[in-house]
Amino acid sequence: MEERTARMCLAATIEPGHSRVAEAVAEFGAAEVWAELVDGDQDGPLTSRARTVTPAELVERTARVGQRFVIPGDDEWPARLADLAGCEPVNQLSGEPLGLWVRGGGHLGELTARAIAVVGSRASSAYGDSVASEISADLSEGGRAVLSGGAYGIDAAAHRGCLAGRTATLAVLASGLDQPYPSGHGQLFERIATSGVLVSELPPGEHPTRMRFLARNRLIAAMTTGTVMVEAAARSGARNTVTWANALSRVVMAVPGPVTSATSVTPHRLIREAEAVLVTNAAEVLELLSPLGRRVPRAPTEQRPTDELAPDELRLFELVPGRGSLSAGELAVRAGMSMLACLAVLGRLGDAGFVVQDDAGRWRLPPRQPRVAG
Amino acid sequence: MEERTARMCLAATIEPGHSRVAEAVAEFGAAEVWAELVDGDQDGPLTSRARTVTPAELVERTARVGQRFVIPGDDEWPARLADLAGCEPVNQLSGEPLGLWVRGGGHLGELTARAIAVVGSRASSAYGDSVASEISADLSEGGRAVLSGGAYGIDAAAHRGCLAGRTATLAVLASGLDQPYPSGHGQLFERIATSGVLVSELPPGEHPTRMRFLARNRLIAAMTTGTVMVEAAARSGARNTVTWANALSRVVMAVPGPVTSATSVTPHRLIREAEAVLVTNAAEVLELLSPLGRRVPRAPTEQRPTDELAPDELRLFELVPGRGSLSAGELAVRAGMSMLACLAVLGRLGDAGFVVQDDAGRWRLPPRQPRVAG
Repeated sequence: MEERTARMCLAATIEPGHSRVAEAVAEFGAAEVWAELVDGDQDGPLTSRARTVTPAELVERTARVGQRFVIPGDDEWPARLADLAGCEPVNQLSGEPLGLWVRGGGHLGELTARAIAVVGSRASSAYGDSVASEISADLSEGGRAVLSGGAYGIDAAAHRGCLAGRTATLAVLASGLDQPYPSGHGQLFERIATSGVLVSELPPGEHPTRMRFLARNRLIAAMTTGTVMVEAAARSGARNTVTWANALSRVVMAVPGPVTSATSVTPHRLIREAEAVLVTNAAEVLELLSPLGRRVPRAPTEQRPTDELAPDELRLFELVPGRGSLSAGELAVRAGMSMLACLAVLGRLGDAGFVVQDDAGRWRLPPRQPRVAG
Repeated sequence: MEERTARMCLAATIEPGHSRVAEAVAEFGAAEVWAELVDGDQDGPLTSRARTVTPAELVERTARVGQRFVIPGDDEWPARLADLAGCEPVNQLSGEPLGLWVRGGGHLGELTARAIAVVGSRASSAYGDSVASEISADLSEGGRAVLSGGAYGIDAAAHRGCLAGRTATLAVLASGLDQPYPSGHGQLFERIATSGVLVSELPPGEHPTRMRFLARNRLIAAMTTGTVMVEAAARSGARNTVTWANALSRVVMAVPGPVTSATSVTPHRLIREAEAVLVTNAAEVLELLSPLGRRVPRAPTEQRPTDELAPDELRLFELVPGRGSLSAGELAVRAGMSMLACLAVLGRLGDAGFVVQDDAGRWRLPPRQPRVAG
């Protein structure tokens, strides 16, 4: 059986976030795992379920509802999802998805390369909706794509804000894309699909469950460079996306609000407990994310001076902005290091000439060497 | 000349935050510095100004307007001010004050031992006023004294909130206490003086200047264990108090607000840049301060009875309110201790005479020693 079809059949068999199957697929290939499952001696619940899947019918149905099934290695596959393979489980869920059902005119790979998640409560306030929409519109104007979960409240405001800007938006759902949830967002999903994409780990026909929402949240965190939490009450599903984003070392940001507002309780707690950095607008989001843009992987043959740096040195060096400067305190916060550790590392970086301190004691990159025309 | 009178004359001569005179006084004593200034060979602007001061007249005027002049070593002197001696200058200002003019029925030393600064913008919003007032009332109910600068806006809301609670409040002014600024707060200052204190580094008759406000801010930061910034626009004097609080290693806290509010710009920036910890209510303020309260350095020569207390004893002792009483259960909750541990510590504090139990079994401070008329 073709690898893509086997992955599709396996994805239709297991529940999202079932990492043991993902690990077996990584080791033996999907075709072999699928064959073992349907033709092997074992007779567990997974086998029973696998035997209800008709490969040709699944392929046909996927095409019939206007979807495509994207797998690792495809041009459209979001490279960042690979980070899920090595990530600690959250709620017993983990693993890179076997494949994704995608619908829409956007290119999933290109959109996720510059995607930022904007998430929050369904029961949002007018304030939260307005801030989510404004930040998303500005991120979109800045060339970033906003990714969210398609829910009522903050998610919808984020998608709509992005649609009002220059870029497409991505909605990652916890149901089959032909059964989008909430059904009241049918028109919104159509608009999203025009220029952007709808994405799901579940095959057509499937409905959301609590665990599917939790597994979906890991995709929201993994497919983006950073997550902005706009509003959420003390107990909120959006909190789970932040847990994933932190587990994946993504940049986690939160928007403050009135201390009298129940829907700002979770953002405030995240900021207070240093699980998120406070942001008030899109410019601050972009500022936090831009240094990470430089982390783009390089060809292995190309030697760079930074190859000699220890991990903590490299991390801090990459946080020093290309233009302007930061105080040691600001760098410590962004690196998630103690002030003392940060100063020690900055000292070493300074000695080696990677960074310089200005008269105000702030850290910046040294003046650039003129490049020799080649 | 008596040391107190010499300090008073020097304080009436120099501008607040003039650390060279403070250092000379620390080394040679105020009487010698004063004598050198008025009778010496030098003839600078300081000498000219000193020669306008008539010691007996200054002492008489201080008493006539109902003020007292408190100096280091006095029972009423705030021990925390000693931290200013070793602190880096801010705006070229530094140094422990030579003495303080004080007015009011409160005991400056006792009040500052449990004081928290609540500061912010004069041009505050209704939201900011309401939050400042509520946090201050709750801090007051928790036995803490709120200290602020007596200005319009957040300062006034903080003082009023504290007055509505159980403890006295402290206003530190940048003018002579008989010329309180703003004059529209005359009634508020009278209410503050009833149970609390008005404090100034300036003698009767003096008016505020920009530098005097900046020098005053160092006292607000130094006399408290922590500073809560409620609201301030991008450029605000309250920002300067936070700079001092950080320079003095005090706990700096800031209250978030709507990102659309100009008066929350500074609190948000402080939180974002890790200069302040986000707080949303008094309980969070107390949580941040209770373990750190023990860090407060003291003047090396000045022994306080509480120096002998173990950390858990000191923590519990500082939670016993200045007025009124608390049950062991209430104290246990506020200290974050088990009931059993709390009772054991209260027993030790009671044996040592730090606290007493009333007929209802509630814990309070022992009756104050009558002050000897001097």
